[in-house]
Amino acid sequence: MTERAHMRLGAFLYPTGYHVAAWRHPDVPADAGVNISHYTELARTAERGRFDFLFLPDSSALRGTDMEALSRTAIRYVAQFEPLTLLGALSAATERIGLTATVSSTYTEPYHAARMIASLDHISAGRAGWNLVTSQNPYEAYNFGLTEHPEHGARYARAEEYAQVVKGLWDTWSDEAWVRDKEAGQFFDPDGVRPLGHRGDHFTVRGPLNMPRTPQGHPVTIQAGSSGPGRELAAATADVVFTAQQSVAGAQAFTADVKARAEKHGRSRESVQVMTGIFPFVGRTMAEAEDKFECLQDLIDPQVGLSLLSSELGHVDLSGYDLDGPLPEIPPSNSGKSRSELLAKMAAEEGLSIRQLYKRVAGSRGHRQVVGTAESVADELADWFRSGAADGFIVMPPQLPSSLADFTDLVVPELQRRGLFRTEYEGTTLRDHLGLGRPAR
Amino acid sequence: MTERAHMRLGAFLYPTGYHVAAWRHPDVPADAGVNISHYTELARTAERGRFDFLFLPDSSALRGTDMEALSRTAIRYVAQFEPLTLLGALSAATERIGLTATVSSTYTEPYHAARMIASLDHISAGRAGWNLVTSQNPYEAYNFGLTEHPEHGARYARAEEYAQVVKGLWDTWSDEAWVRDKEAGQFFDPDGVRPLGHRGDHFTVRGPLNMPRTPQGHPVTIQAGSSGPGRELAAATADVVFTAQQSVAGAQAFTADVKARAEKHGRSRESVQVMTGIFPFVGRTMAEAEDKFECLQDLIDPQVGLSLLSSELGHVDLSGYDLDGPLPEIPPSNSGKSRSELLAKMAAEEGLSIRQLYKRVAGSRGHRQVVGTAESVADELADWFRSGAADGFIVMPPQLPSSLADFTDLVVPELQRRGLFRTEYEGTTLRDHLGLGRPAR
Repeated sequence: MTERAHMRLGAFLYPTGYHVAAWRHPDVPADAGVNISHYTELARTAERGRFDFLFLPDSSALRGTDMEALSRTAIRYVAQFEPLTLLGALSAATERIGLTATVSSTYTEPYHAARMIASLDHISAGRAGWNLVTSQNPYEAYNFGLTEHPEHGARYARAEEYAQVVKGLWDTWSDEAWVRDKEAGQFFDPDGVRPLGHRGDHFTVRGPLNMPRTPQGHPVTIQAGSSGPGRELAAATADVVFTAQQSVAGAQAFTADVKARAEKHGRSRESVQVMTGIFPFVGRTMAEAEDKFECLQDLIDPQVGLSLLSSELGHVDLSGYDLDGPLPEIPPSNSGKSRSELLAKMAAEEGLSIRQLYKRVAGSRGHRQVVGTAESVADELADWFRSGAADGFIVMPPQLPSSLADFTDLVVPELQRRGLFRTEYEGTTLRDHLGLGRPAR
Repeated sequence: MTERAHMRLGAFLYPTGYHVAAWRHPDVPADAGVNISHYTELARTAERGRFDFLFLPDSSALRGTDMEALSRTAIRYVAQFEPLTLLGALSAATERIGLTATVSSTYTEPYHAARMIASLDHISAGRAGWNLVTSQNPYEAYNFGLTEHPEHGARYARAEEYAQVVKGLWDTWSDEAWVRDKEAGQFFDPDGVRPLGHRGDHFTVRGPLNMPRTPQGHPVTIQAGSSGPGRELAAATADVVFTAQQSVAGAQAFTADVKARAEKHGRSRESVQVMTGIFPFVGRTMAEAEDKFECLQDLIDPQVGLSLLSSELGHVDLSGYDLDGPLPEIPPSNSGKSRSELLAKMAAEEGLSIRQLYKRVAGSRGHRQVVGTAESVADELADWFRSGAADGFIVMPPQLPSSLADFTDLVVPELQRRGLFRTEYEGTTLRDHLGLGRPAR
């Protein structure tokens, strides 16, 4: 269904890796979250693998308040760099790879977000992107003077207006405005700038942005919402949609739906790239791959597993239930709806106990897990890509740095041999890598 | 009066230099504000000169709405990198120099500020600082949903609470909390963290910060307020006070006052370092220095000069007055009070016309201007330093990169020969450079 020769690849970087027990592995630096040498190595490895971009998840709060449970995990945003300052540093350590960071539309002023992402685009000569999220972490509210999290629908309405404001600010200057004529004393052409003058339900922002239009015009917008409002927002405003999908058929349906919605918004199907999460254990043999998987699964702490499952289900209290019994009915929640529904469905269909579900969840947390050799992993990615299930993949290495190195050194060369992935960057900007044009103002 | 052997030096970096006409000089890259190579060169030059820190001024809006006037200048925050993303990049290009950025307490959430500065401190291994300001630019309000700027006194009350929240967040984790015991599965010790639980007049922030305590414990706090409330805030919370002073006597009085206020707050005199702005034209001969000064003064555009003067006086409309007549009475304003009063006093005492005043202002804008050789500039700095007028200086190079190179290659060696400035960094953190201890939690 897709006509592109090359798939897209993003590298998703939780500090110690995506697996909940990764920090306990002997090969993983336990201080990864605040270790700049570690991140520099990851960025260079991904660039060596010709990945399209790095992807930094983020939250402005610990995910939870139960310190006993949190104290046994490294992935609940307890200890990691703030992503925009980190990407500033990584821009200087890399040359071509895209640099994308998660920004919350719920708790960050759009003027600040527009300015920082634009700044990063200038600093990196056109490699910046942002993952626009509506905060799903209710604990963030308490760090910003609020006592409760806005309701699900309201968060999406706000996010849509947010994207409008940010993109509007990026377009307040024309590309030709910066004449910088020293002789005439004319730094810019006043006809090349217009204030934004935005007055909406959620924001009032005059502008203009105090920065020239950036190398990419619009830094790349990523979105990860898979619920109805999330898809609609993505179809209207995103360049890349990041989604969790378990099957080719489900992914095909999702991708077709997002692209059809994009067309209704007057956009081409190619202007929205759908990338599905993949959580890969790669070995030189299948046995080696399985060993890598089991090694991490064995390191999962039961307390951590249960707490994580509760959080993924919308902060449901599961403490009264038998761990080896079935999952109870999950009430509707104000957190991410699509993830909660996906997990409840999986447990019912496969007849998983709470313990089995938390073990499943603690690893991939809803994303497609693959355990195999370079050949078998490449087979699966090729199948998804060629059948229109995805334009590419967000690779979520289970442990870092080794799982990213495995993917780069084993899977990427196999994809390249098959003509499914670039062997060199062809352009210089992230939009170039993704095959997206530079938007006119 | 001071017992320190070595003075402190900061490098103040407007992109093209502090002189309003610098961008028109042939040696200055006119795109400096978004030119990362330019900033990397500046950072490395200052580090070669063993400066304590880089200082990045900032504003979240153009300073003004008259696009015709703004279009003829490069220094009104029309086009420059956002400072925290920029410092991220510069951290990777340098090893020892401190990295400080201006943060507005008026329009940035304290949780975000605390987190980004802490992140930069981790990234740079203890070299981060922030210049806490109350926004003096009324045009910023319009980019953040407000129709008017908070009143002067209210901004300072908010800033004081802001500093409390940020420092409180920096102390939410003990240094010993991060046990990272892989065998026991204990990532941190829950006894090593406490929420902030701040509830004040302006902010409600629960915390904790989702980041370990930083290499410096508290990244360095700089403040620039010189009015009564500004001094009081600085005495209570700042490690470094940045001030504009024209005379040794005035600077001695200011420095003594700030240090006496600090003592009232239970702090030592040495815990607050007073650094005065200096705007230096340095030549191998006096004639060469004067040529450098006149060359920039000749490039000042009258429209720019008048607009700048109006802004410095609190956005007073001067368009109806004779440029060669005296300055009219200036009404009290909601902008920075100390600057406006200083300028009106200078004009009255020296009998300056509006034109003469704008030429004076357009250059140094209230800061001490020195034109001389390495020897004469070093004489002046030594005099100020030894007489207790200042602990050090914020060097505001008129044009970049050349004026910073002049200071580094001519004045710094002269100061070093006299034993007034370090020849090598003695420690690794910015607090080390400034002779400040690492605060206990």
